[in-house]
Amino acid sequence: MTDLRLDALRHALPGLRLLDAAADLEHYGRDATRRWTPAPLAIAQPANTGEVQGIARWANEHRIALVPSGGRTGLSGGAVAANGELVVSLERMRRVLAFDPVDRTLTVEAGIPLQAAQDAAREHGLQYPVDFASRGTATIGGGIATNAGGVRVLRYGNTREWIAGLKLVTGTGELLDLNRGLLKNSSGYDLRHLAIGAEGTLGIVVEATLRLADPPPPTGVMLLALPGFDAIMPLFAQLRRTLRLEAFEFLTDKALRHVLAHSGKDPFDSTHPYYVLTEFEVDEAAALSAFEHAVGQGWVEDGVIAASEAQAAELWRLREGISESLAPHTPYKNDVAVRVSAMPAFLAEADALLGREYPDFEVVWFGHIGDGNLHINVLKPAGMAQGAFAERCGGVTVHLAELLEKHGGSISAEHGIGLAKKPWLLGTRSAAEIELMRGIRRVFDPNRIMNPGKVFDP
Amino acid sequence: MTDLRLDALRHALPGLRLLDAAADLEHYGRDATRRWTPAPLAIAQPANTGEVQGIARWANEHRIALVPSGGRTGLSGGAVAANGELVVSLERMRRVLAFDPVDRTLTVEAGIPLQAAQDAAREHGLQYPVDFASRGTATIGGGIATNAGGVRVLRYGNTREWIAGLKLVTGTGELLDLNRGLLKNSSGYDLRHLAIGAEGTLGIVVEATLRLADPPPPTGVMLLALPGFDAIMPLFAQLRRTLRLEAFEFLTDKALRHVLAHSGKDPFDSTHPYYVLTEFEVDEAAALSAFEHAVGQGWVEDGVIAASEAQAAELWRLREGISESLAPHTPYKNDVAVRVSAMPAFLAEADALLGREYPDFEVVWFGHIGDGNLHINVLKPAGMAQGAFAERCGGVTVHLAELLEKHGGSISAEHGIGLAKKPWLLGTRSAAEIELMRGIRRVFDPNRIMNPGKVFDP
Repeated sequence: MTDLRLDALRHALPGLRLLDAAADLEHYGRDATRRWTPAPLAIAQPANTGEVQGIARWANEHRIALVPSGGRTGLSGGAVAANGELVVSLERMRRVLAFDPVDRTLTVEAGIPLQAAQDAAREHGLQYPVDFASRGTATIGGGIATNAGGVRVLRYGNTREWIAGLKLVTGTGELLDLNRGLLKNSSGYDLRHLAIGAEGTLGIVVEATLRLADPPPPTGVMLLALPGFDAIMPLFAQLRRTLRLEAFEFLTDKALRHVLAHSGKDPFDSTHPYYVLTEFEVDEAAALSAFEHAVGQGWVEDGVIAASEAQAAELWRLREGISESLAPHTPYKNDVAVRVSAMPAFLAEADALLGREYPDFEVVWFGHIGDGNLHINVLKPAGMAQGAFAERCGGVTVHLAELLEKHGGSISAEHGIGLAKKPWLLGTRSAAEIELMRGIRRVFDPNRIMNPGKVFDP
Repeated sequence: MTDLRLDALRHALPGLRLLDAAADLEHYGRDATRRWTPAPLAIAQPANTGEVQGIARWANEHRIALVPSGGRTGLSGGAVAANGELVVSLERMRRVLAFDPVDRTLTVEAGIPLQAAQDAAREHGLQYPVDFASRGTATIGGGIATNAGGVRVLRYGNTREWIAGLKLVTGTGELLDLNRGLLKNSSGYDLRHLAIGAEGTLGIVVEATLRLADPPPPTGVMLLALPGFDAIMPLFAQLRRTLRLEAFEFLTDKALRHVLAHSGKDPFDSTHPYYVLTEFEVDEAAALSAFEHAVGQGWVEDGVIAASEAQAAELWRLREGISESLAPHTPYKNDVAVRVSAMPAFLAEADALLGREYPDFEVVWFGHIGDGNLHINVLKPAGMAQGAFAERCGGVTVHLAELLEKHGGSISAEHGIGLAKKPWLLGTRSAAEIELMRGIRRVFDPNRIMNPGKVFDP
């Protein structure tokens, strides 16, 4: 390494671990999108908050952009470093710092993987209820950056609901200790909530105090086969009324076929166009009666209920395995949300739109329909160039964004805006809101050090 | 009215209702603090959002400060207009605009009283679970301004958790439609959460979409008599473990005596130094067993359980009637919070501090101890001048603020900072945080139109 700027960083922080091998630049310069070519200046792996602050001060002095980096499982390019940025990887900052049984909180460094935090909570007889498929790699800090949702939002809400406090190193290197675990604190703006979902544009989250919940109740898991789109919302309304739902997930037959091609076994004898995976507090009589009612109404054609934890895990794998099974097709991912009440009209119009615009592409639908959140993955035809594919999909997203605006929806429910959704932020957020966001960012980060070019940044 | 600026306002908004009778200026110029002498320019009562925007534009042109005004039940002076401001009273904007049974949301104008919103939710078989004693007068907009807490936070959280969307007229007159009722929306900064708790310094909340919950379960209410301070936290831990708590409220015998002097009847035959009022999901066996265990441990000396809804209301009145019964003594109100785990040490030190500093004053303690939130009211001795009293109390608050800083607490749990707590914001929030808040405010309100001089504003 002969870059003088990096020499200055090494001089300022002699103990800082810096990587710049080509393989490291590639590994740490990208996230799960695989659309942008990684080209970071180098990778820093600070061991503590002081080093993160030192990096921010150095970055200001030398006007170097920083890209905060967790597990890089992101799906919107928020952690991509493609323009000579210094990647600040928090993978060495992954300790559990404290557990408090009275406050029922777990304080962790932000680089801890989600699953490690879940495990630590479980060891204390409690749970951290935010959960999603990339739990083994995704970090708490990354989840905070996008206000991650996942498969338990219906019951527990998003990441935001579970952050009792966080520490943030701002774009000027200031360390903020926000909310400090308090349940009640009406003392000016709640900057904690501003940092949650900011995708690293206000600073780097270095530590978080997680609220924990009682352990989950015993649950049942059913996979239901539906004859048509129109059955989904009435089925959801009925199950929500009669069972205590933990999850209500939707997938199409195409999604199931991809998972089964990857591994696993079809739980049904014949195919059905749509499926719902639902988890609920155990109540066998109510579940059976709800199932029979749904069959009677024509909303459900067939169903299986897990008889063991292993079977429940197997059913969940049919839903959680979708993204992995689609990855070889480098899908163009849409992650849209509308109010649940707007879902029927939106579904019908989106289905018509995508059928019209993508007659020759395979489109795979699934998602957290109980939260109003749909994932619509467009698969790249084999042999089509990535650039041409992204351009074609972008052209369709213009219309999808218009449809979302019409229905009061969002272009990103839980993946964040990053690079991938930036062209379509307007419509979900007004021009006035975008100007305010830019202004707020200038207050936290006047030199545009933190993740520049992302979300709303030109 | 001959003020030329008001003439310009009348010209710009011919239909706007303006009041300037002396009685109106006094009525609308103050809140429940009674410490500042009201001196507004006039009172505007807009009938719709367009008029609020027009007022903000006029205020920018003429550099007139605006004070947003709800039910003026605030306890920190946040709604006080003492410097020629125009009070913007939302009392004509109190309609229920929409109910959605699928989203389970109620959309209201911000001037609607809390109780009217609660009643509207109940008519649809649901509840808006934020609740506090001034429910008949306090407005939804005012609750949003301070992120109001109240007596159900233990179970349901603060106001923030129940706001699915809000509309804000900023300091430049822009109308923002924030989050639009979505459950999931990761599309840049969540400005909704920035507006919640901003005490009107970023703009005027004109509309809110409230999340509703299932109706409350059948509950039981107990009043327990405690022999000493040290019993409170172990009792809380035990009840939280064995019952599903809806509320856990604390009061001293002094507080009870004030309520009983006002009205009502002592439920116990003898006095006890401390009391806990707790509400919980009905489970008679568990409640009895918890009570017996607490008596066995020496945490509880006596107890009564409500046998009817009327008796439950009567017990609640002993807690909710405190503020009203103290009002004639124009108390100096402290509204402090620490983490629940820090409560025992904080309680002991605060008790010693206040005993030492106020040997001659009556000090009344009560609060939402299950949330780490204590109200400490210092009663003004009869005959002492208000100014001298406030100065003396301010001198003690310096030490209380130091104690809070030491224990990681907050100078305001739920009342807000307003004017009353502004001198002690530093300690709860760092200098860097205060600078950031000022910077954010400049982004939303470059001309310092919105509630200037409050919270952190010089």
